[in-house]
Amino acid sequence: MSENEFFTIRGYSLIEQKDMSYAMEDYLEMIYRHARKGKYMRVNQLASLLNVRPPSASKMTAKLRDSGMIQFEPYGIIQLTKRGEEIGAYLLHRHEVLHSLFCRITCSENELELVEKIEHAFDMQMIEKIEFFLRSLETSIEKAEK
Amino acid sequence: MSENEFFTIRGYSLIEQKDMSYAMEDYLEMIYRHARKGKYMRVNQLASLLNVRPPSASKMTAKLRDSGMIQFEPYGIIQLTKRGEEIGAYLLHRHEVLHSLFCRITCSENELELVEKIEHAFDMQMIEKIEFFLRSLETSIEKAEK
Repeated sequence: MSENEFFTIRGYSLIEQKDMSYAMEDYLEMIYRHARKGKYMRVNQLASLLNVRPPSASKMTAKLRDSGMIQFEPYGIIQLTKRGEEIGAYLLHRHEVLHSLFCRITCSENELELVEKIEHAFDMQMIEKIEFFLRSLETSIEKAEK
Repeated sequence: MSENEFFTIRGYSLIEQKDMSYAMEDYLEMIYRHARKGKYMRVNQLASLLNVRPPSASKMTAKLRDSGMIQFEPYGIIQLTKRGEEIGAYLLHRHEVLHSLFCRITCSENELELVEKIEHAFDMQMIEKIEFFLRSLETSIEKAEK
């Protein structure tokens, strides 16, 4: 098991314990996505990235703070906690696995809209099975090409 | 193009024009599923099949009637209209294609819960691409076995 896999499994077990709404998941995934690039993030910027109004983003980030996922640094900078980082990593992983599956099916490079709509319904077991399925597909293609 | 395919494409174009809620889609799919077996269906029975209370089923069937999908016959029997039958056929087809996909991925025979949660997000184009993908998989398995 790679370190990254452990990371996402732990993120999943944390998300199972937490009562996170779909919207909270979307916010946390976006914050994680941004933090991974080592960039600062403030509420206004988050609102703009998620196409929501700043008051909505304020409300939701307060919820994430109350759930121990993020904390606010001086100058309104949003900082992920350890727990928030682990769950964020899992959310992004789930998103990427589903995106790979549907891009594979449609032979396209962008199925973001669909994935955004359905990702919340998938649990870790199903995500692992999809990963296994995608790896098997690649293996059989490689064999066929030999 | 087979008659059945035409049927579902027409069902899809009808559903695009109509402003159907996810719940209405679920109800119509269940009514169609039952009608296809040539069985009578009444509101109480529909409520029981969908695990909802009879007053909720009454309310939703009234909406389906107002949208021209069903009509009520004597003795409270629910009858699909031509339009309701076409849309119902599409909804069942969409369900079955997604169920095949996820059963294929998980090597299981039952992925109903997941499919119920996500099916509303899929449009006809995506369903066609999934069908094509599943057919290609079968073809490549057959080739490999030769």
